[in-house]
Amino acid sequence: MKNNIVKSILWQDGKLFLLDQRKLPGHEEFIEQYSLEDVIDSIRKMIVRGAPAIAISGIYGMCVYLNSVSEKPDYSDFLMKIQNLVESRPTAVNLRLATEEYLNQFTESYWRESGLDRIRRDSETLANRFFEEDIETNSKIASNGADLFKDHTGDLNILTHCNTGAIATAGIGTALGVIRFLRDRGFRLTVYVSETRPYHQGSRLTSWELGKEGIEHYIITDSMSAFVMNEKKINAVLVGADRIARNGDTANKIGTYSHAIIAGHHSVPFFVAGSRTSFDLSIASGREIPIEMRNSDELTQNSFLKDSDGKNYIPPGILSPETALALNPSFDVTPSDLISGIITEMGVISPVNETEVKKLLKF
Amino acid sequence: MKNNIVKSILWQDGKLFLLDQRKLPGHEEFIEQYSLEDVIDSIRKMIVRGAPAIAISGIYGMCVYLNSVSEKPDYSDFLMKIQNLVESRPTAVNLRLATEEYLNQFTESYWRESGLDRIRRDSETLANRFFEEDIETNSKIASNGADLFKDHTGDLNILTHCNTGAIATAGIGTALGVIRFLRDRGFRLTVYVSETRPYHQGSRLTSWELGKEGIEHYIITDSMSAFVMNEKKINAVLVGADRIARNGDTANKIGTYSHAIIAGHHSVPFFVAGSRTSFDLSIASGREIPIEMRNSDELTQNSFLKDSDGKNYIPPGILSPETALALNPSFDVTPSDLISGIITEMGVISPVNETEVKKLLKF
Repeated sequence: MKNNIVKSILWQDGKLFLLDQRKLPGHEEFIEQYSLEDVIDSIRKMIVRGAPAIAISGIYGMCVYLNSVSEKPDYSDFLMKIQNLVESRPTAVNLRLATEEYLNQFTESYWRESGLDRIRRDSETLANRFFEEDIETNSKIASNGADLFKDHTGDLNILTHCNTGAIATAGIGTALGVIRFLRDRGFRLTVYVSETRPYHQGSRLTSWELGKEGIEHYIITDSMSAFVMNEKKINAVLVGADRIARNGDTANKIGTYSHAIIAGHHSVPFFVAGSRTSFDLSIASGREIPIEMRNSDELTQNSFLKDSDGKNYIPPGILSPETALALNPSFDVTPSDLISGIITEMGVISPVNETEVKKLLKF
Repeated sequence: MKNNIVKSILWQDGKLFLLDQRKLPGHEEFIEQYSLEDVIDSIRKMIVRGAPAIAISGIYGMCVYLNSVSEKPDYSDFLMKIQNLVESRPTAVNLRLATEEYLNQFTESYWRESGLDRIRRDSETLANRFFEEDIETNSKIASNGADLFKDHTGDLNILTHCNTGAIATAGIGTALGVIRFLRDRGFRLTVYVSETRPYHQGSRLTSWELGKEGIEHYIITDSMSAFVMNEKKINAVLVGADRIARNGDTANKIGTYSHAIIAGHHSVPFFVAGSRTSFDLSIASGREIPIEMRNSDELTQNSFLKDSDGKNYIPPGILSPETALALNPSFDVTPSDLISGIITEMGVISPVNETEVKKLLKF
């Protein structure tokens, strides 16, 4: 069943290759990462994206770093590298949690007592573990999510936003994993794929993943969700998460909050799918989540889209006046009261509030 | 004050030129319309767009037709031409109402009794009258709309969708006319311009009009309106109308309904600006408004955007997989209960319901 599942992160013989997600679906091209700085650059430029995939790539980036040095670096240099990595994208929390777990093992005393070979080996083992655990986590989320529809009969119409699939994770994805499991359980599925401006993760990436597996879907502009919820019988909205606060407020790709309000207006259940590592228990609510603001030209010129010569497909001044400014927040925060449930590998949190989050995550 | 106001419809010495709105803001290029069929094609391809501009262009298209024939056509041929014109785009009502008014003059008996020269002259006079009346109507709408803020002190933040400006009308625009008047009345304005996928009327056209007049604005993706309403103090959403039913339900550019729900959620006033000719009193509610479905590739490939060689800027397979399908409704319907007021040249309808519509329009 998982033969068609694409991978975006390849770790082979101590080398890291990342699928260039800016070039999908037109070109499937892996870029070798020669340094941690390459990985940080790939995260910033969204060559790799998706909160779980960023976290795993980042830890493999630490392995690349350790493989590239000829002798054991000072511990302070090592810490600085991790700090640079964590700052590459501020909103998603998975990378920060992964580096914290990484540092639980690579303590100062461990560092002092260990040789470079051992550090390299242990780093790779941990990165591989993160990778394997994410595959496992994805499957459990998918199963728990699909269980939500176990009493459902008839066709299923799902609306999703951004890309929460195989290339955003190590496994089958989060929200898209749920969709894959629903297909496997025999539902006749139609997925409405919100194109997700400005980066087009929906139309470029989610549609590509669904198409590879023959799952029926229609791309819509982000602005069509109200039309679709009014005209079609949408059974649920399923989205991912970049950071979930203690009370369940969820930061996710810009546009998620709009979909949530619109779903609420139409009494359509709105589910977030995310792993334990999407939760930031250090913050009480979404108000504390930093929102990354990206460049204007990503929106006004589709500047991330380059042809094979590295030139923008669309020259400046075509999609917007050359001097026009845009706001470009990369994420928004959906308050917990608009979320019907948060689907995790440990179960589904519903209703969504601090008490229920606490109960499931046992913190 | 109106020196910078751009025009999209030029009628000169019996010839019609339309600004090619697909090429804005990059290129300001007028295309001569040699036949009514050219005009119909220009309406279908959205070379000219905006409900009032479509209506006026269509009537001038009838003038082009009458100027092109060497002898007076049969009345039935004349009627068929009008019928073809009316069917060019189904959602906006202004064109239909304009042709109905046109036919009130060009009756069968008038046709029988009149020579071709007189018909040509009368047709041109009527088209010019529609043009001039729209300029007048725009100003009255703008004045009535600006009056809504007469007790407002401090800065004004307005969110708008699509393009409702000079190039969508003959004058200063409808919703954008209100914005122009607010600027003239001395408010410090910031306009959030929803880019309006898939055709980018917001980022290409509204931003271009505002930029020419130095009105501060930021382009946002359509999906950012919830973020913006949550983060900024938005004083009002101002949009246009393609067809308004007797009860005030309003069809407008796809995405309008989403903005209205989101505005309601944030208690932001949501105003529609439209003329008497935006109302279709023959229908009781928005459920009766036909929604035009456009081609998939307009959305999946930005196929309306061509470079100077006539090639798509973005080849198929870049913004979406080549075989991916999209839904592409060009409009949606905002129910009257989400509309704070409808701004017309005759006054503001508020609250919005059939009784109030009736009271103002006296039908």
